[in-house]
Amino acid sequence: MAYEFRVTRRVEFVETDTAGIVHYSNFFRYMEVAEHGFFRSIGFSIVTTQIEPALGWPCVHAECDYLQPLRFEDEFEVHMLVSEKRSKSLSYLFRFRKLDNAPVEIARGKLTVVCITRHNGKMSAATIPKAIADKIEVAPAQALEH
Amino acid sequence: MAYEFRVTRRVEFVETDTAGIVHYSNFFRYMEVAEHGFFRSIGFSIVTTQIEPALGWPCVHAECDYLQPLRFEDEFEVHMLVSEKRSKSLSYLFRFRKLDNAPVEIARGKLTVVCITRHNGKMSAATIPKAIADKIEVAPAQALEH
Amino acid sequence: MAYEFRVTRRVEFVETDTAGIVHYSNFFRYMEVAEHGFFRSIGFSIVTTQIEPALGWPCVHAECDYLQPLRFEDEFEVHMLVSEKRSKSLSYLFRFRKLDNAPVEIARGKLTVVCITRHNGKMSAATIPKAIADKIEVAPAQALEH
Amino acid sequence: MAYEFRVTRRVEFVETDTAGIVHYSNFFRYMEVAEHGFFRSIGFSIVTTQIEPALGWPCVHAECDYLQPLRFEDEFEVHMLVSEKRSKSLSYLFRFRKLDNAPVEIARGKLTVVCITRHNGKMSAATIPKAIADKIEVAPAQALEH
Repeated sequence: MAYEFRVTRRVEFVETDTAGIVHYSNFFRYMEVAEHGFFRSIGFSIVTTQIEPALGWPCVHAECDYLQPLRFEDEFEVHMLVSEKRSKSLSYLFRFRKLDNAPVEIARGKLTVVCITRHNGKMSAATIPKAIADKIEVAPAQALEH
Repeated sequence: MAYEFRVTRRVEFVETDTAGIVHYSNFFRYMEVAEHGFFRSIGFSIVTTQIEPALGWPCVHAECDYLQPLRFEDEFEVHMLVSEKRSKSLSYLFRFRKLDNAPVEIARGKLTVVCITRHNGKMSAATIPKAIADKIEVAPAQALEH
Repeated sequence: MAYEFRVTRRVEFVETDTAGIVHYSNFFRYMEVAEHGFFRSIGFSIVTTQIEPALGWPCVHAECDYLQPLRFEDEFEVHMLVSEKRSKSLSYLFRFRKLDNAPVEIARGKLTVVCITRHNGKMSAATIPKAIADKIEVAPAQALEH
Repeated sequence: MAYEFRVTRRVEFVETDTAGIVHYSNFFRYMEVAEHGFFRSIGFSIVTTQIEPALGWPCVHAECDYLQPLRFEDEFEVHMLVSEKRSKSLSYLFRFRKLDNAPVEIARGKLTVVCITRHNGKMSAATIPKAIADKIEVAPAQALEH
């Protein structure tokens, strides 16, 4: 059972903008990298072809609060925590910390993704298969709270 | 006084992903295009060098709810509405509609941006100058509600 | 028979970087927008499902020479010209012009794409179908030369 | 004296497109990541504020030949080699290898960047400072050839 995943990255030049900071849309891309790493850590790919029929996990809600900017070559950590687990959806909390002398939280994000299958190109929500659900648990309350 | 702006776009190939739909992070880029168009429509650039000292408008909160996917070459409208106007910040609501036979809302987003100035590279919140504030008003309640 | 296509764009904030100019990789995205617009102008999509079996057009060579930078909100034109037409591939020339008082060429790009079909996920080069080939011609020499 | 740098990456979801492969423009972003890592490896940032006046390194030529596609979660190496060293510019060769059983070259790229300084927002070519030039050498011919 897993409930968290951590990714460390360095800001790339193309991720910054004329304001000299990481474009706010890129935080959502960083979240996804942590989410997909989490799935690999429990033995699955987010393009879930290991299950029949193949599953997808489209995002139905995304949000982010920005506290401090990131700049080119800054190193930071994305810490993902499972915040909710339902029969057909998962929600995640993401804490962004800049990695220097005293790591502080610089942004906080949330994603909700739905488990889907496809029939003739149409997506419909599906119950998360037991093989996957059994490996995921909600993070302890104190990890989610502060 | 202005409170809304509309942009029509066609989905570009690079905006889609392996799932065959627009990557969810790109909706935040579409929102920004509408926000910046709105600023031009009232005579300013979001890189606000027309005012002394120059202003910036970093995003402090962003969110999006996704109802239906967009695919390559789909045409859609981003309809931006000013939802809140404070002394140092502005909030926007964004309605995404796919433009085919019966346009339906496929996503809804929100952004809050803060007016800032820079001193020695550090950003600090600033009161929105009268020249700008006088041109922006909150959208009528009924436009924001449904 | 068509041999050219023009797209006018305005630089978006996310396309710029810390250096305050459009990131060089984005010129390749602009080229593609012109290429796909060209295909629509002759009645096809680059995701060519109008033909059986469906065709794809992956890029096998891309290059760009950069003469002057583009900045946020600059308006520019991408002028695409067909420079070579072979049985299984097409090559394009792209001229980028910044649209101000005296439009000058600020970059020049080239793409070569190959017509492919897919069998069990594997791509293989295919002869460009007559229905498409008949609508495309190489640009006049003088348009390609200077 | 250094003449090469290697980066290993895993394809991220947002880097792929509807065709299920990495969008061709992203290879130019991968090249840059290797270039910037190379600069850090010799003790500098590509945003070269360690030198007075600060230097920039805009790209004046970029190209790539694509041999095989990369797909989501593929691991690959970008191997950068210095191919030319002039007084005001540097050229790099990039070999992309997919990291599976038998690593094969799947793409080959080239970049030429120019050392510049800025005066009142205008960029002009500058001689590469000795402190930097002394740390960079052209790769051996046999490494560049095959």
